[in-house]
Formats: sequence, C-alpha cells, structure tokens
Amino acid sequence: MEINVVQKVMKVNDELAAAVRQELTEAGVVALNIMSSPGSGKTTLIEKTLAAIKDSVRVAVLEGDPETSLDAERIAKFDVPVTQIETAGGCHLEANLVKRALANFDLPNLDLLIIENVGNLVCPVGFDLGENAQVGMVSTTEGHDKPAKYPNLFRKADVIILNKIDLLPYINFDFEQFRNYVHDLNPETPLIDMSCTTGEGFEAWLLWIKEKMALESAQPVA
Amino acid sequence: MEINVVQKVMKVNDELAAAVRQELTEAGVVALNIMSSPGSGKTTLIEKTLAAIKDSVRVAVLEGDPETSLDAERIAKFDVPVTQIETAGGCHLEANLVKRALANFDLPNLDLLIIENVGNLVCPVGFDLGENAQVGMVSTTEGHDKPAKYPNLFRKADVIILNKIDLLPYINFDFEQFRNYVHDLNPETPLIDMSCTTGEGFEAWLLWIKEKMALESAQPVA
Repeated sequence: MEINVVQKVMKVNDELAAAVRQELTEAGVVALNIMSSPGSGKTTLIEKTLAAIKDSVRVAVLEGDPETSLDAERIAKFDVPVTQIETAGGCHLEANLVKRALANFDLPNLDLLIIENVGNLVCPVGFDLGENAQVGMVSTTEGHDKPAKYPNLFRKADVIILNKIDLLPYINFDFEQFRNYVHDLNPETPLIDMSCTTGEGFEAWLLWIKEKMALESAQPVA
Repeated sequence: MEINVVQKVMKVNDELAAAVRQELTEAGVVALNIMSSPGSGKTTLIEKTLAAIKDSVRVAVLEGDPETSLDAERIAKFDVPVTQIETAGGCHLEANLVKRALANFDLPNLDLLIIENVGNLVCPVGFDLGENAQVGMVSTTEGHDKPAKYPNLFRKADVIILNKIDLLPYINFDFEQFRNYVHDLNPETPLIDMSCTTGEGFEAWLLWIKEKMALESAQPVA
C-alpha cells in the first residue's frame, strides 16, 4: 500500500517533468538542475556563471529554497529573470513546482534556465524536473567520503563539480580517494575541480555548459 | 487524503519515539540526536567526544547513513558499542529504526547513547527518535545564511554547534549575522563555536553533555 502511494507520486512527477521538458524543448531552452548539500556553493556558482555569460546567453534562474528569498535577491542583482520557489520546508523541488514557475518566464526569449535545487544531498536527485542535465556539486570541506555515503546524486549526475579547492591546504581531503569513489559510481561523468573564490576550474565549467547547449540544440524537437 | 497519510506516518513515528524514550529512561540512558548537513563534522565530533569521555561515561553510538558503514567503522575503533542503521537511500532516521536498533545494546550498562542522523539539514528534524536532546550542527564553510534558509533545525535544537571555526580566516563568513539569525530563531539555545581540528570550544561541549546528563538523571522516571 505504502509502495503504491510512493509509485503514484513518482509517476505524477515523471509526467509533469515530461511536460516541462517538452515546453522547454519547444522554446529552445536548455535547463540545468544544480544539486548539492547546503552551502556547497550553488548560488555562488550561479552568480559567477551569470557574470560570465549573461551578455552572450539569454539566461534565467529558478531558485529553490525551504524559506527566505535570500538567494533570489542575490541573483536579481545580475538583472536576469529570476523566480523563487519557496518549498515551505520541503526538502527538494518537484516537477509540478517547476511547471507552474515556467509561466513567469518568457521562454522563447531564453536560451538557458539554471535551476538551483534545495540544498540536500539525498532527496532532490530522485525527482526529475524536466531538465536537460543534472549538475552534482560537492565541496572539499564536506570530506572526500561523501560520494560513497550519499551515492545517488553522484551516480546520476551528468557533470560533477568539486568546489572550494582553494581550501585544500587547510583541511584533510584525500583527493585520490574522492576521485576513486566518483569513478566507481559514474566512470563517464566529467569531474571539474573548482574554486568559485579563485576562479580555478571555471573555464572548464563554462565550456561544459557551451557544449551541452550545442548538443541539445542539435537534437531534433520531439 | 495526502495530508491524512502524512499525519498517520507522523503519528506512528511519535508513538514509537515515545516507546524508545520510555525504554531509554527506564534503563537510565540519555540519548542525543546529532543533525547537520553532510560533512559538517558530526562523525569527527563523535570521535573526539568518545576519546574524551569513554573512560568515565558508558557510551554507545548509533550511526545513520544512506549507504556504507564508513562512519560505523571509524567509531568502532574507539572500542565502544556501535550499531549502524543503513537507510538504503533514506534521507533521515525514524523512530522505528532506532527502536529495532536498541536491541543491539545492553542498555542497563549504558549512560549515554549518541545518535548520528543522516547528513541532511531539512528532513531529520521532523522525526522524533525518542532522544533527550537535539544537537544541531553547522560548519562555517556552509555560509552564515544557513539558519535563515533552513530554519527548522535551528528552531528546535537544544544546543547548536558552529564547527570549523579554524577555517574562518580563509572564507567569507559574517559571524554577527549568523548569530543574529540563530538568535531570532531560538533565543534561548546555547551556541558553541567549535573547531574539531584545533579543539577550540570542545570543553564547552563536554560541559553541556555533562549538565544534560545530570539534568536528565534528576528527572523522575515516568
């Protein structure tokens, strides 16, 4: 009985995610779903990304947070369209929330939609939002064992960012062990070492976005 | 309908948590439920705590993790009773898991049970495990805005630990803003600034445990 309820919830989410995907594809918008623990650096990554691309890419941001509009306010300073989804304590975004939020955007005049999920290394990855790619982020200060202990995001992510590498001199972080854990879970996925503070690794990330957008726009519309 | 299902789940959890609480109280065991994001330092806090008190306090540990027994293996090195609850991807501990795990411990020969919850700043705080106190932990590298964005744990915690203060010189962290956020949510709760690396703040934590255990043992058994 309990399993049936869960399956029904997931089925409804998958149907709504398919509708989001179709709406975005028809408008020519590529969507990225960024997921990590709280405080890994998702909002800072988005800020730096906007600063780098907003003059050449028509980009908008969808911000998910359990409470407050602190992140949306940070993003709004970049003068790009931003919508806040406040989950009222909820631990992840779901496709129905994204579907409704899309009405706030002028989709045909967008190229890229960046979705910042709720900070949570466990729950968000289970819910398809209709995105084109899942971006998994983790920071060095969280420890090298996180992929092993919270494997689902690392298994599914299309790209994995290791943030805060500028703090490596001050912490215990076994780089090789981290890479081995990630490789065991997801051998094909690119792993980008990054510091949003120093900018290291940022060019690789921008290149990944560019290639992803080129790849998606080369796909025939369903 | 959906709300009814959720309420029923919570009611069952509350009943089982009450049973856990009674079992622990009758055995004279004080239980702490430690909650934080992944990588805030829960396991390291427990390791340091065991090293400091295990000769004077009969202590055991209950480890919750979505996958792997990495943390339980770290704890087992301290030669204290440890039980691992693997949630198979689940995002929080629930009272039924704790209830079953208690059978692995010789409760009358314990004084203190430390429960390490799944690394998650959102979900665990909603589930009473039958503990005597909720310990909320957050690390400086997660950013000073976490209490505002993920308020539920900070509202409910009986003590809040700010870990990794040794990294403050290398990051942007507004200490006063953090304290204001915490104070607005939970004005009475002690806030302990700590570095599990340097040991700063650790005496205050040990004192808090000692006082908590003295307070609970002074309560009449229900």
